[in-house]
Amino acid sequence: MSEVLQIVRQVLDSQPFSVLLGARISAVESKAISIELPVRAELLQQHGFVHGGVLSYLADNALTFAGGLALGSKIVTSEYKINYVRPAVGELLVARAGVVYAGSRQAVCRCDVFVQQNGTEKLVATAQGTISTQAD
Amino acid sequence: MSEVLQIVRQVLDSQPFSVLLGARISAVESKAISIELPVRAELLQQHGFVHGGVLSYLADNALTFAGGLALGSKIVTSEYKINYVRPAVGELLVARAGVVYAGSRQAVCRCDVFVQQNGTEKLVATAQGTISTQAD
Amino acid sequence: MSEVLQIVRQVLDSQPFSVLLGARISAVESKAISIELPVRAELLQQHGFVHGGVLSYLADNALTFAGGLALGSKIVTSEYKINYVRPAVGELLVARAGVVYAGSRQAVCRCDVFVQQNGTEKLVATAQGTISTQAD
Amino acid sequence: MSEVLQIVRQVLDSQPFSVLLGARISAVESKAISIELPVRAELLQQHGFVHGGVLSYLADNALTFAGGLALGSKIVTSEYKINYVRPAVGELLVARAGVVYAGSRQAVCRCDVFVQQNGTEKLVATAQGTISTQAD
Repeated sequence: MSEVLQIVRQVLDSQPFSVLLGARISAVESKAISIELPVRAELLQQHGFVHGGVLSYLADNALTFAGGLALGSKIVTSEYKINYVRPAVGELLVARAGVVYAGSRQAVCRCDVFVQQNGTEKLVATAQGTISTQAD
Repeated sequence: MSEVLQIVRQVLDSQPFSVLLGARISAVESKAISIELPVRAELLQQHGFVHGGVLSYLADNALTFAGGLALGSKIVTSEYKINYVRPAVGELLVARAGVVYAGSRQAVCRCDVFVQQNGTEKLVATAQGTISTQAD
Repeated sequence: MSEVLQIVRQVLDSQPFSVLLGARISAVESKAISIELPVRAELLQQHGFVHGGVLSYLADNALTFAGGLALGSKIVTSEYKINYVRPAVGELLVARAGVVYAGSRQAVCRCDVFVQQNGTEKLVATAQGTISTQAD
Repeated sequence: MSEVLQIVRQVLDSQPFSVLLGARISAVESKAISIELPVRAELLQQHGFVHGGVLSYLADNALTFAGGLALGSKIVTSEYKINYVRPAVGELLVARAGVVYAGSRQAVCRCDVFVQQNGTEKLVATAQGTISTQAD
């Protein structure tokens, strides 16, 4: 296991909310990261789809981790925007985020969120956001 | 208790994810709604602040409920954007959302998310999004 | 005329693109600013409505000027999001922007864009964005 | 010249604001489109960079045309979000937009805006937005 993978897993595991939801880092590269989240009944909304807030959590977190790959660990998520494109029904959510641009103080990242069901994968949401280094 | 308040509470209580997090409707008007969420350890990130994903959940849900006040119950959240402005530290989160514009198929809504600590309230995030009626 | 109004007018007048479009500062307060733009044929799209790019220009500029009221003149617009809510038909566009939150390095601002026609005013777009101080 | 290219060029040429700015369609595929805009002094802001409103216009228009490739010509741009990542200095702006998802009533599109200078090309802005069919 790479050192970077070990570090980002430790960060994720130190987030009580990520532990509550059950997220885990599935892959990390120099400018990209994947976070998975098994779907379970507690994560749904009233129609049986995964709650939008879960998809948002996943996009938010993957964007932030991607920004961290470019900017280091002292970062904050300034903002992001997410489009939901399909109801999420399936067994596993996968968020794949990457760095589009990184300067000295800000990184702009994108994230696609997919749901896997019976061996097929579909896009359910797509996000774009800004990660910033912390002000001194 | 007003009939509308009763209905929106039933909807929120039928969302397993909202029950997992502990959200509750605190007030509803003709074009505005407030959702509260008591802060607890499970909702934090690694630095002891409320996880951004929790603030996003709350904004997403309040925007959607506000859109529902204008468009009815057969709606989907198309997209939203959120700016985080301060780390959230305190006992209670309050999301206040309202309808900025409503047409026949779409409503544009805004939501401010506050944290209450020791009797004072501070803005922690602000969001803007689009709620749409479901395609037939 | 207040000193601040004089300064922001000089800044706007030193933007060739704002001069090309015909924008002018109509009012400025400590945390809010209004920019007007008379509608003319060159600013339209193929259906006779004001082109969305004109509304975006106006929102972008008003957000930036609002951010400047909070952060000073050495700023950049990091990002913004805009919802178009109605076709813009009329004689005058008015963008009203204000500061929602200002820290040491970033300000979050909002802007509503209206169109005036025959003495009535209607919302045509609403925006939210982040203005940042320049990195050293 | 393909028939689609001919049609989208006619649409662009029927937008007075696009003619004022000097935009032109440079390429079109089944789900992607490129729009170019030669930089000239009238399009700048006070520091000699291309005005953000010009980049926004270009992103807005390219997103809309991309959405039109998926949804047909009776569309409106509901909303978009744009991140500016670098000052735009150069001779030519190029916006490349594509369809990320298309349903029956909405398409989610992305657009990257580049500036070309002395034979090199740099990303200056990136956008994501929602194009909708017109309500009946």
